[in-house]
Amino acid sequence: METSALQKERASYQPKLPKALKGAVKIKEGEPTQSVDNHEEIKKLFPNTYGMPLVEFVPAEKQESFRINVGVILSGGQAPGGHNVISGLYDELKKLNPENRLFGFLMGPGGLVDHNYIEITDVLMNKYRNTGGFDLIGSGRTKLEKEEQFEKGLEIIRELDIKALVIVGGDDSNTNACVLAEYYAAKKYGVQVIGCPKTIDGDLKNDQIETSFGFDTATKTYSELIGNIARDCNSARKYWHFIKLMGRSASHIALECALQTQPNICLISEEIEAKDLSLNDIVEDIATVVARRAHDGRNYGVVLIPEGLIEFIPSIGRLIEELNDLLAEHGNDYKDLDIDAQRAYIIEHLSEGNKATFETLPEGVARQLSLDRDPHGNVQVSLIETERLISDMVAMKLNKWAKQGKYNGSFATLHHFLGYEGRCAAPSNFDADYCYSLGTSAVQLIANGKTGYMAIIKNTTEKAEDWIAGGVPITMMMNIERRNGELKPVIRKALVELDGAPFKEFVKLRSKWAKETSYIYPGPVQYWGPSDVCDQTTRTLALEQGKEVFVF
Amino acid sequence: METSALQKERASYQPKLPKALKGAVKIKEGEPTQSVDNHEEIKKLFPNTYGMPLVEFVPAEKQESFRINVGVILSGGQAPGGHNVISGLYDELKKLNPENRLFGFLMGPGGLVDHNYIEITDVLMNKYRNTGGFDLIGSGRTKLEKEEQFEKGLEIIRELDIKALVIVGGDDSNTNACVLAEYYAAKKYGVQVIGCPKTIDGDLKNDQIETSFGFDTATKTYSELIGNIARDCNSARKYWHFIKLMGRSASHIALECALQTQPNICLISEEIEAKDLSLNDIVEDIATVVARRAHDGRNYGVVLIPEGLIEFIPSIGRLIEELNDLLAEHGNDYKDLDIDAQRAYIIEHLSEGNKATFETLPEGVARQLSLDRDPHGNVQVSLIETERLISDMVAMKLNKWAKQGKYNGSFATLHHFLGYEGRCAAPSNFDADYCYSLGTSAVQLIANGKTGYMAIIKNTTEKAEDWIAGGVPITMMMNIERRNGELKPVIRKALVELDGAPFKEFVKLRSKWAKETSYIYPGPVQYWGPSDVCDQTTRTLALEQGKEVFVF
Repeated sequence: METSALQKERASYQPKLPKALKGAVKIKEGEPTQSVDNHEEIKKLFPNTYGMPLVEFVPAEKQESFRINVGVILSGGQAPGGHNVISGLYDELKKLNPENRLFGFLMGPGGLVDHNYIEITDVLMNKYRNTGGFDLIGSGRTKLEKEEQFEKGLEIIRELDIKALVIVGGDDSNTNACVLAEYYAAKKYGVQVIGCPKTIDGDLKNDQIETSFGFDTATKTYSELIGNIARDCNSARKYWHFIKLMGRSASHIALECALQTQPNICLISEEIEAKDLSLNDIVEDIATVVARRAHDGRNYGVVLIPEGLIEFIPSIGRLIEELNDLLAEHGNDYKDLDIDAQRAYIIEHLSEGNKATFETLPEGVARQLSLDRDPHGNVQVSLIETERLISDMVAMKLNKWAKQGKYNGSFATLHHFLGYEGRCAAPSNFDADYCYSLGTSAVQLIANGKTGYMAIIKNTTEKAEDWIAGGVPITMMMNIERRNGELKPVIRKALVELDGAPFKEFVKLRSKWAKETSYIYPGPVQYWGPSDVCDQTTRTLALEQGKEVFVF
Repeated sequence: METSALQKERASYQPKLPKALKGAVKIKEGEPTQSVDNHEEIKKLFPNTYGMPLVEFVPAEKQESFRINVGVILSGGQAPGGHNVISGLYDELKKLNPENRLFGFLMGPGGLVDHNYIEITDVLMNKYRNTGGFDLIGSGRTKLEKEEQFEKGLEIIRELDIKALVIVGGDDSNTNACVLAEYYAAKKYGVQVIGCPKTIDGDLKNDQIETSFGFDTATKTYSELIGNIARDCNSARKYWHFIKLMGRSASHIALECALQTQPNICLISEEIEAKDLSLNDIVEDIATVVARRAHDGRNYGVVLIPEGLIEFIPSIGRLIEELNDLLAEHGNDYKDLDIDAQRAYIIEHLSEGNKATFETLPEGVARQLSLDRDPHGNVQVSLIETERLISDMVAMKLNKWAKQGKYNGSFATLHHFLGYEGRCAAPSNFDADYCYSLGTSAVQLIANGKTGYMAIIKNTTEKAEDWIAGGVPITMMMNIERRNGELKPVIRKALVELDGAPFKEFVKLRSKWAKETSYIYPGPVQYWGPSDVCDQTTRTLALEQGKEVFVF
């Protein structure tokens, strides 16, 4: 395998650990916990893993050698730092006993079910330290949720003498990790299951999980690119750049990137939903900013659009919800129809209000809503070209205003979608340290006999040394939600909070950004050099924790 | 102006200069030169600026104080390092005499004609040192080519007591700089004109100009992103990523990025032209690689496509050439017709062979070829979605093969266009040093009474200290070419040479890349840290100069 100069130099970086995880470790247990909502239902569904205490690791004088084989699975979309979770697992396992073995199941949860795995060796591990991507063992989106999968997985678990599984994933995957933990506990199979909070989207976060890994690096990478585009915009002064950002439902990525780069406009889906704005309202708001800037001689700008926007426009959200349920229920009747018949089928089966919304959508968007769905049965929002849809509608609005004499500018647009450019970036110092600490914590949870827990690291705006490592029972983060037409126990997804500090900071600044040109150009992620450049936390995390925000 | 932590720290970077430019400087003149072709015609068109010698700067014991005001213009597309050309000019002017003044004409050559300018001051300059973008004075695409523009510009030149203009641009802009130099010399206006070689496209290069500035940073930024996408590709193992890369006609950017990242496929327009491949041939070649990888269980890959590809497919190239001439001649009759009438008009006026080609093109492509043109009257190749066109055609081919039982894989595609993400990146150490040296050289050319020269720096694969600074008469790089239906003296554009070392290296490796998965992940540009990471030259430059290529 040929590697870049950066990768070679970066291989020798030793990720920093919290004080408590540096040497021998012991566990400190807190009070019993309960789920965030629906206590009785969750308790009934998880009799063996409900109500367990929060735990924290503290330094010990010595720790007994501990012999175990562990399996690790990377689940869902890539996020910078996945390989460092694995190196954290690997190093801590070897520290506890050099005989310990770590197996990686290949291409996601499917690798467990289909018995595809490799053993992680020294040579292999060293090639992947501090690198981006999940290519060491691959990832996949198979959902681990059926008993037959659990039983099939058990065969290889037994064969490899594995006593614990670590599942690295987002909210869905960690929900499933908990179901699996409960199943193996109920069956007394003696197999522990531990989760790790991964997702660039930033929506796996709550009182216990300060941030999911990958969010830091991905938002820095996107902000690098947004800054470069903004600088281009401010040099040529003739284009409006519409930039859609990955991030699924929540707008955390868009908000964080806005705070880092100060674009003229950033849409926040959660606000649009709360204010019950229509597509036309959004278009009118943008056109108003464009017209004002044109009036000031500024026929250029940058607009950030969160990937999930379209679902959060309430009328369209209601439509998508019914479509998700409808197609989950009737998918088989529907999937072999031709395009026109599919459209007719949908119109026939929708309720009145949603039918009206569906019929008024531009055809391309209507088709995208009714076709491709991800393996969880949801609309693949990333395929909808919202950035073009919105800029086209803004152009139409401006044309109308021009005819009415209310606008006299030029509106030339360029479109970008940033997503795959950042999910596999080499982890920033923060993500490299954070992930390595998560992996280390996961092993300590295992060594302390825990199952149905997620590894956590708190106090993350301080120096790594002062981070607090521990674990949280996954049931503690659960509630009951409707998914694909069924009520299910799931980890509550964290959306942007409109009374949270990051959004409030954004609101304070955005009218200035809209009128003036306040772009900030963060530049590429740096690994060496001044600490204020290399070790900055995200603005979201700093604001949420009430830390002083860098005065740029 | 708020600035990022990186920008703040980077402001204090002192760009490195060649030994000869560090202190007092004197000039060493070579033999008279002649143009690369059409000697007599060029000589006749440039009687005052033809045949001048190459010059080189060497250290002197002392240099007299020299009092002058200078104007600078940024012309055409942005390239990383533009602000460092200006800081090089500024510092050297102040070194020669603190009374010297530097004026920046705003938004490109139009600023000279329309008398829009600012004076560059210490405070202003310090905010832009080592930053990306052209936003200090903006850029524009107005062509400076008419006598009335030259005379209009002269008014403000006289008013500001400017004795020399520095025009920072690509081949077209430097051609125009030479025309302007000749005009002012012929009129004995006493205004010198000096050019600087700028373009990320890498096509302004010849025996005298080793590389144009911005190519280094832009290709590193694109390679960072291609590497991230490739790592995603190799983690998820389910998509073929089609990535189009900016770079206008030439494929230098695609080739350089391919050498840095080792994708499965990279198209090189110049090769396609030389081999007289049709669109169908290209599609068949790609589909063959896809099918072979599918046979090996690899239903994923990365394809790089140069922006200018479509023009280089000979049949389409002939069509575009005729369209460019046709629309230059009849643009006025044509521009107010509706879309269908435009199509009919074109078909009616095209020659037989080109008509046939035009009629068989997918409609969207045909329309893009016949509509939007840049201010130079050329097809805006960056607007043609070649990446989608080609992947759609590959999918059709694979479907056909599947029906014939020759292919049994999955072919899911994702598309990217990388361009605006890299043109305004903060300059790499190389571009920061190179541009600063070019600006310094330009001032020394002025101080030594030169006009119609371009500033040059040679020996650029060595340490900056050992670089050789000097100047080349612009006429030396000229020949006569047909542009928009007219024969004109122009700087010869450098395309990828099929017998050059970079292309030969690529050919040597590409069949391995196609079959296996050999991706290299370069990561983001680094400014601090190990020299092998921060100070790498491009592979193109290293190979062209026979330097040892980094064995990754």
